[in-house]
Amino acid sequence: MKPPVSVTITGAAGNIGYALVFRIAAGQMLGEDQPVILRLLEVPQAMTALSGVAMELDDCAFPLLHDVVLTDDPGTGFRDTNYAMLVGSKPRSKGMERKDLITENARIFAAQGKAINAHAARDIRVLVVGNPANTNTLIAATNAPDIDPANFTAMTRLDHNRAKAQIAIKTNHLVADITRMTIWGNHSATQYPDINHCLVDGTPATELVSMDWAIDHFTPTVQRRGAAIIEARGASSAASAADAAIDHMHSWMLGTDEGDWVSMAIPSDGSYGIEAGLIYSFPVTCEGKAYKIVQGLEIDEYSTKKMRLTEQELKQEREIIEDLL
Amino acid sequence: MKPPVSVTITGAAGNIGYALVFRIAAGQMLGEDQPVILRLLEVPQAMTALSGVAMELDDCAFPLLHDVVLTDDPGTGFRDTNYAMLVGSKPRSKGMERKDLITENARIFAAQGKAINAHAARDIRVLVVGNPANTNTLIAATNAPDIDPANFTAMTRLDHNRAKAQIAIKTNHLVADITRMTIWGNHSATQYPDINHCLVDGTPATELVSMDWAIDHFTPTVQRRGAAIIEARGASSAASAADAAIDHMHSWMLGTDEGDWVSMAIPSDGSYGIEAGLIYSFPVTCEGKAYKIVQGLEIDEYSTKKMRLTEQELKQEREIIEDLL
Repeated sequence: MKPPVSVTITGAAGNIGYALVFRIAAGQMLGEDQPVILRLLEVPQAMTALSGVAMELDDCAFPLLHDVVLTDDPGTGFRDTNYAMLVGSKPRSKGMERKDLITENARIFAAQGKAINAHAARDIRVLVVGNPANTNTLIAATNAPDIDPANFTAMTRLDHNRAKAQIAIKTNHLVADITRMTIWGNHSATQYPDINHCLVDGTPATELVSMDWAIDHFTPTVQRRGAAIIEARGASSAASAADAAIDHMHSWMLGTDEGDWVSMAIPSDGSYGIEAGLIYSFPVTCEGKAYKIVQGLEIDEYSTKKMRLTEQELKQEREIIEDLL
Repeated sequence: MKPPVSVTITGAAGNIGYALVFRIAAGQMLGEDQPVILRLLEVPQAMTALSGVAMELDDCAFPLLHDVVLTDDPGTGFRDTNYAMLVGSKPRSKGMERKDLITENARIFAAQGKAINAHAARDIRVLVVGNPANTNTLIAATNAPDIDPANFTAMTRLDHNRAKAQIAIKTNHLVADITRMTIWGNHSATQYPDINHCLVDGTPATELVSMDWAIDHFTPTVQRRGAAIIEARGASSAASAADAAIDHMHSWMLGTDEGDWVSMAIPSDGSYGIEAGLIYSFPVTCEGKAYKIVQGLEIDEYSTKKMRLTEQELKQEREIIEDLL
């Protein structure tokens, strides 16, 4: 058996956290031969609820779960940790301006970046789930100058998986038949789900669905999926967000399938003309615990426009919080 | 890849159901080489919420999930199904007598037994999670005369796992070191968690903890764990109950570890003097998709008394609903 690794989760008593921690302890993220120590970081007012989550973790008798640490102190939460999943964030309250939402979260993620820089393992891998995820990632990475910025990523895997599911439903295929889906840009309404390179059991998706359908139905469905689920369930997506977080880390650490790729929001290296340093979702392959942007994809005029639009939004978000960078 | 099997889950839009269905679709219950079709059965007023759960299942893009059927019709819900996890039950409302609770649930599980008898695969395996689980199982099995009664079981795995966790914490061991835990009897406050045969890394637990501790602290902690979690979380155990349901089915179908056993409530065959036909939790080993009661355990006077007490409660529950048998 391998030595245990530490996984820090923020907002662990929330709905996504509750859907996430049990699956990590069961070995679904890092593999069934990898023992884990969970370091659960919450705000002080959630510590009692968090103790209930820890009791339930005990009660599952997970063979891989070697320890659970509960804390409201970032220094303790990130101590020597190998993985951080930053789920907790301040939600938009009634009447709150988007600008204020971005600024308030920027303060939280700046503090967490500093704590990671001071306490975490030097090769820590960070996944930001809390919104606005891309810009929160930029702030956290900037505030952790001793950690490789490439180790800070944001989640667009839920959008990626949603897009795959929509193509599977439309073409009447199993979702396992859908490969090479791409989400470009920001995890927000400007994201661009791109089916131009997507394959359905080896056949180009563009031969099976019309671009009109893609523009008028597919893209809005993926973009507005969260709201549709809230309407049906009376609660926001928790299990599917947690699942995407597990997928993101699993792909990063254990690799992508031969011939396929996934979407991850990562610091741009200038590929496809996206400004270097912005946290932007690209198609990536993973091998040897590292990701690599898929190069050489042909980008048509429509796609270029959409990719620029979401890049523009990320630049605007950056402007709002530039004093924290 | 194997052909897909059908898994029916009742109460799938509830909290335990929500913690359960994603893990089944991810392959944690029946193995990562076993595709599944989920048949989700709910009451009519929960169908909108259930449609939200189904959207999230789509959004996870699980390669093993071949189809999701949503229905409020038991005939459709159990059609040709291979596994049934009966999670939904009527909870105790304020001022309700225990007798009325048992009777109301008896009607639900009698109807589900009939639907299973009429529509399910002949080798269906049934796990009842909804309380009172043992008596609900008895009713369902009795109302499905064409199915082998041995294929109807109730869940005491959560109690089993909770008991293992408490011994691990007390002896400062990993939970993976704890084997041969036993829960006898009813999934209720009369259950008897028995550490007389339990091993801690090979050493008898009784050499490491005192019987006074077991009686005064261990047993009440296991019995009252659900209430302690509600107090901390402000919500009942969902993830750990779902985890135990997965463990129960996983052990039954894929076998128990060499030298270890698990607890399952099953129709008694008269072992240990327990009246044949009662649904009673025993220590069992599983192999070849079948369970077998562990025989020949030495039972001391104290244990005999506790085992009779919980048997007595099951007989009383049976009396309440005998007109439905």
